[in-house]
Amino acid sequence: MSASVDRKFNDTPEKLVANTIRCLAADLTQEFKGGHPGTVMGAANIAIALWRFAMRYNPKNPDWLNRDRFVLSAGHACLMQYIQLHFTGYDAWTLDQLKTYHNPNFGMAAGHPEIEYPGCEVTTGPLGQGLANAVGMAIAAKNLAATYNKSDYELFNSTVWAFTGDGCLQEGVGQEALSMAGHLKLDNLIVIYDDNHITVDGNINITFTEDTCAKMAANGFHVIKIEDGTNDLGAIIHAFETAKTVKGKPVFIHIRTVIGYGSRKANTGAAHGTALGPDETKYTKSALGFDPEIKCVIPDEVYDYYRPVVKRGADDEAAWTTLFSQYADAFPAEHAELTQRLSGQLPADWRQQLPPKSDLPSAPQPTRKSSGIAVNALASKYNTFTAGSADLADSTFVSFKGQTDFQAPESGLGDYSGRQIRYGIREFAMVAAANGMAAFHKGLFIPICSTFFQFWIYAAPAARMSALQKLRIIGVGTHDCIGIGEDGPTHQPIALASLYRSLPNFNFVRPADAEEVMGAWELALDASDTPSLFAFSRQNVPLLEGSDRSKVKLGAYPIFSTSATAAPELVLIGTGSEVARAIDAAKLLSEKLGLVVRVVSMPSQAHFDRQPFEYRDEVLGSGKALVVGIEAWSSYGWARYAHASLSMHTFGCSAPQEKLFEIFGFGVENVAAKIEEWVGRRRSEDGKIVLPRLGEFEELLLGYAQLHH
Amino acid sequence: MSASVDRKFNDTPEKLVANTIRCLAADLTQEFKGGHPGTVMGAANIAIALWRFAMRYNPKNPDWLNRDRFVLSAGHACLMQYIQLHFTGYDAWTLDQLKTYHNPNFGMAAGHPEIEYPGCEVTTGPLGQGLANAVGMAIAAKNLAATYNKSDYELFNSTVWAFTGDGCLQEGVGQEALSMAGHLKLDNLIVIYDDNHITVDGNINITFTEDTCAKMAANGFHVIKIEDGTNDLGAIIHAFETAKTVKGKPVFIHIRTVIGYGSRKANTGAAHGTALGPDETKYTKSALGFDPEIKCVIPDEVYDYYRPVVKRGADDEAAWTTLFSQYADAFPAEHAELTQRLSGQLPADWRQQLPPKSDLPSAPQPTRKSSGIAVNALASKYNTFTAGSADLADSTFVSFKGQTDFQAPESGLGDYSGRQIRYGIREFAMVAAANGMAAFHKGLFIPICSTFFQFWIYAAPAARMSALQKLRIIGVGTHDCIGIGEDGPTHQPIALASLYRSLPNFNFVRPADAEEVMGAWELALDASDTPSLFAFSRQNVPLLEGSDRSKVKLGAYPIFSTSATAAPELVLIGTGSEVARAIDAAKLLSEKLGLVVRVVSMPSQAHFDRQPFEYRDEVLGSGKALVVGIEAWSSYGWARYAHASLSMHTFGCSAPQEKLFEIFGFGVENVAAKIEEWVGRRRSEDGKIVLPRLGEFEELLLGYAQLHH
Repeated sequence: MSASVDRKFNDTPEKLVANTIRCLAADLTQEFKGGHPGTVMGAANIAIALWRFAMRYNPKNPDWLNRDRFVLSAGHACLMQYIQLHFTGYDAWTLDQLKTYHNPNFGMAAGHPEIEYPGCEVTTGPLGQGLANAVGMAIAAKNLAATYNKSDYELFNSTVWAFTGDGCLQEGVGQEALSMAGHLKLDNLIVIYDDNHITVDGNINITFTEDTCAKMAANGFHVIKIEDGTNDLGAIIHAFETAKTVKGKPVFIHIRTVIGYGSRKANTGAAHGTALGPDETKYTKSALGFDPEIKCVIPDEVYDYYRPVVKRGADDEAAWTTLFSQYADAFPAEHAELTQRLSGQLPADWRQQLPPKSDLPSAPQPTRKSSGIAVNALASKYNTFTAGSADLADSTFVSFKGQTDFQAPESGLGDYSGRQIRYGIREFAMVAAANGMAAFHKGLFIPICSTFFQFWIYAAPAARMSALQKLRIIGVGTHDCIGIGEDGPTHQPIALASLYRSLPNFNFVRPADAEEVMGAWELALDASDTPSLFAFSRQNVPLLEGSDRSKVKLGAYPIFSTSATAAPELVLIGTGSEVARAIDAAKLLSEKLGLVVRVVSMPSQAHFDRQPFEYRDEVLGSGKALVVGIEAWSSYGWARYAHASLSMHTFGCSAPQEKLFEIFGFGVENVAAKIEEWVGRRRSEDGKIVLPRLGEFEELLLGYAQLHH
Repeated sequence: MSASVDRKFNDTPEKLVANTIRCLAADLTQEFKGGHPGTVMGAANIAIALWRFAMRYNPKNPDWLNRDRFVLSAGHACLMQYIQLHFTGYDAWTLDQLKTYHNPNFGMAAGHPEIEYPGCEVTTGPLGQGLANAVGMAIAAKNLAATYNKSDYELFNSTVWAFTGDGCLQEGVGQEALSMAGHLKLDNLIVIYDDNHITVDGNINITFTEDTCAKMAANGFHVIKIEDGTNDLGAIIHAFETAKTVKGKPVFIHIRTVIGYGSRKANTGAAHGTALGPDETKYTKSALGFDPEIKCVIPDEVYDYYRPVVKRGADDEAAWTTLFSQYADAFPAEHAELTQRLSGQLPADWRQQLPPKSDLPSAPQPTRKSSGIAVNALASKYNTFTAGSADLADSTFVSFKGQTDFQAPESGLGDYSGRQIRYGIREFAMVAAANGMAAFHKGLFIPICSTFFQFWIYAAPAARMSALQKLRIIGVGTHDCIGIGEDGPTHQPIALASLYRSLPNFNFVRPADAEEVMGAWELALDASDTPSLFAFSRQNVPLLEGSDRSKVKLGAYPIFSTSATAAPELVLIGTGSEVARAIDAAKLLSEKLGLVVRVVSMPSQAHFDRQPFEYRDEVLGSGKALVVGIEAWSSYGWARYAHASLSMHTFGCSAPQEKLFEIFGFGVENVAAKIEEWVGRRRSEDGKIVLPRLGEFEELLLGYAQLHH
């Protein structure tokens, strides 16, 4: 292959490698006519500086614990990373795998990096989130160091490298994350800004003219600028070395590059998101000293150039492994704990930390407060948990006894061993950072994140990424309905549950009382590959006689009946704070109508869907009962379980919570009256109940007409 | 009442007014034991400077077109605004209305400002969004000025004032908006930062230590600092006057205040989000020279102090009204267009701009491209429309012939008369800014916003606010399913539709072809109080013989049948790009099974739900047909319309789109085979079809098991 390259033009190994990268990017995108060549071509020297020089990792063991982490926040530039993973000798990243990019015979070279594949620390693509993932990883590394490092035993000292373009810096989540990183003084974070001035819609000056470096300095970053990142490999290598020595601040390296360098589309939007075209691809390869007719040429010298990386990586890991085994002798307790955590499993006694039902407070209390019992018990005992909130820790009860704040030690407010994380009013970055923590090493951290349930709509793009990546984070969403009261419709979730209920690989749980809260925590901790989000009440709910934590994982179960023996003729399904109301309504209805009424608590629709038909059918009354869902959210999704629903048909309003339940028709008398009227309409002339068929699902309109708006 | 105030202590009118505000805030929150007193008390002088001095408005006509707009981005501080609306003489804002704050007899004094009420320009509360609303209003004002102002006829010159706390500056959407405002050089925007150092969780130094002023300067703002905003009214008034004279930059005014000033809880989180308590309320009132035992005292001098505002406002409006009538004579065409726009109605010929079906391209094309026909026809003709994208204008086809970019004139890239808005990669701020534009004056602007459908999850918190506020924005979400192909699962929406389908007052439409696209646009433009979001395909879809734009508003309608006369035995419901697949599958199934198969196109579930039962029942086969939904999204919500569904059960993956439809089971052969097998299982021993009952909804699992992950 080497004969096809012009050695005079490519007269240094560095130049040859950079141009090989550029030609590969041109060829791989052209082959199946799609993808993003431009950034890869412009940033070739950044890639070389990272993988050949700056980063510490072992290509032969991509999972080595103390490796540096690389996060491609500009995920569309993934070819840049894939090519390096091939060059440096990741076994799985063969040339054939590189060629699966945009290929109908698809493989590891996905359109954006995917966490399943070696060398890809997180899945990126939705812009801005990678920066927050990197911040989460830097938090994880700092916390591990502060928790386990000992004098002469620096087990954890890895650096997190994030690569960003303009997009991630424009996205709000990126700005949230960078502000957080500066505040926390995460000097193990290095953000590389590839500034090529080009986005999909053209030159960046149409949208983004801020002084980025000044802004990053204002965020508390140490800022380095490189003028010619397209060609000046030495400057980049030097900057990366300098960055590693900076103390007390994260580092932002602004590198000016030329998108699509080598082609005549350089410096234009045309080089961003499409292949260069057959002629331009040939032109580019010629211009870079490569044979235009031969595809995907990788001269042997390129592999030679990267060869030292393999040995260096193996040596680094071996030294670390030795250190770790010495650590085992010197600090057996810490070593044992860490080993336990690395296994991805909590210690076997975790379930016993949750008090049995008999020990739960018998007086009514908010489910958020009941959850606080679990958070406190778990997080104060196991270093695996981080607890945090977007400025609502006292409201969400996500805090624990004896906690230390995760803060820069020099702040005087905590230190890096702290596991109470103050995310600030940055819901989206909170969850995206939690994803980074969870991705640092599978199961090593279980981040708990919290805010009002309504504001999980801000964090939804990150929670979706938790599910996609099978990262176990635990979300706490409190004040979960009109029960928030006076704060009004902006703070009252009506339609958000539908999103989380329909998301694949996601546990969305709304427990009815303190006992079901414990079941929700058990469910989340039993599921190592699935994120969870709990919806908790602001207001008091009673501890229900029939509640049973072990049944939460069934999704739904009968919690009350007006008859101990007879089959139900009417089934009321409630969730969360509405279950107690359903039980009161059932008693009233049974009296009025003389029917056997069952109440079902349904903390998780998705878990119910997974049960055998026989179970589901029995719970829903075996095709012989009328079924009504009662939930102070949108009716959306209820037709699968019920013939009718009492739901929210509009947004809420600002008034005290008890008043709101009355106004919107969830007062027990009103619930009973509406159902009674509906049951009346479902009777045939001979008095028998006729079950509704498809299309007859009814939303029993409530009292909202009383409201003036 | 006046006797109850210590005149020696309150020895100037300014001091008396400020302390009246503080005592009112303490009393009103204490009365029903809730709300946010602290900011109101700290920022009393900011409020005075705004409403008594800086802002131009007419309390007797809150809707005067050229008024300044005030946006309380820190919505929880609403009492500050309500009190001013009372003091300045807004008729509706009586003292009794003030007292409805947190009152079971609720009224206008909602927990956060609500757009329905006089003097409240937008509904705020979800932090950060108010800043973006204000940016949108500033864009609207600039655009109107550039479009209609003439020499000597400065019809539009209003200023937008945004009040923010720490929270809005931490939120990513706030940062997106501020970056955008700086780029656009919106010198009619003044952002007031009330820096009281306190959030819910305590001192701001636990989360937010960046150099905010330096950051704002980097964003392109002119920055002014005021050290003692708690007491130095003169400095605030001066800063506001200066701010109004700044040209070419928006202005950021950093004002240091003391939260809860006057109480012993000053400077603590305890003054933020709860009443001060009975004793502390009394103490505070005493300390401020008010009788602790008398509630809600407003000395007459306070009303006297504000009296000039009424005359000034009336004079300002009268002068403007005169100018406007002179404008009518001088510029009749512009006046007529503006008057038409102010009516909130598009000109009557808008519908004719959409080409009839016979003029639509007969060759298959993506629905996003078909939508481009409508965008181009409407936006190039009517100044009412702004068209914009989060850096994907060419992909979403939200652009139009002869467009000018909305840019600062000195940029050389456009000017403020432009209606093509370059939002940058800031989806959330895009939609929140669009809300501001739509709220500037009802119906004056119809902002069209666009990005890939998946990234409407970033913008969802703002789209929800569109619905809550009845603001008509039009959202375009393209690349709406696995049809996006190689970009992979991060870019493939699976579960997002559920959110938008369950949102009250929201038109979510997924058209099947170019004809239904026109119907979607008609539906959106017929609904003046409802926002819309369209999901469009990246890939080609054919123009369907049975498609009918007039039926889109019915939500669903039969689009194909294998028999012209016979009633259907099997109904397939498709949406968007899956309708054509359903028609092909219907033909195959009819051949194989000998059944009459109907295909229903269902562009909008919510509109279908609103039809009479008789219509819905007939469409779904009158209780005599098996019904299957076919949609490449989550099955969530389908049980209301179908007995089974072919859906996405997992996230997607990166591969070419046709490959993905095959892999995930939407290939026509596979669809037919799965349904055939299921229909077989629904037959009783005598061959008759037994319709499923509640709980028997089935998700027909597709070919995903073939995939390695």
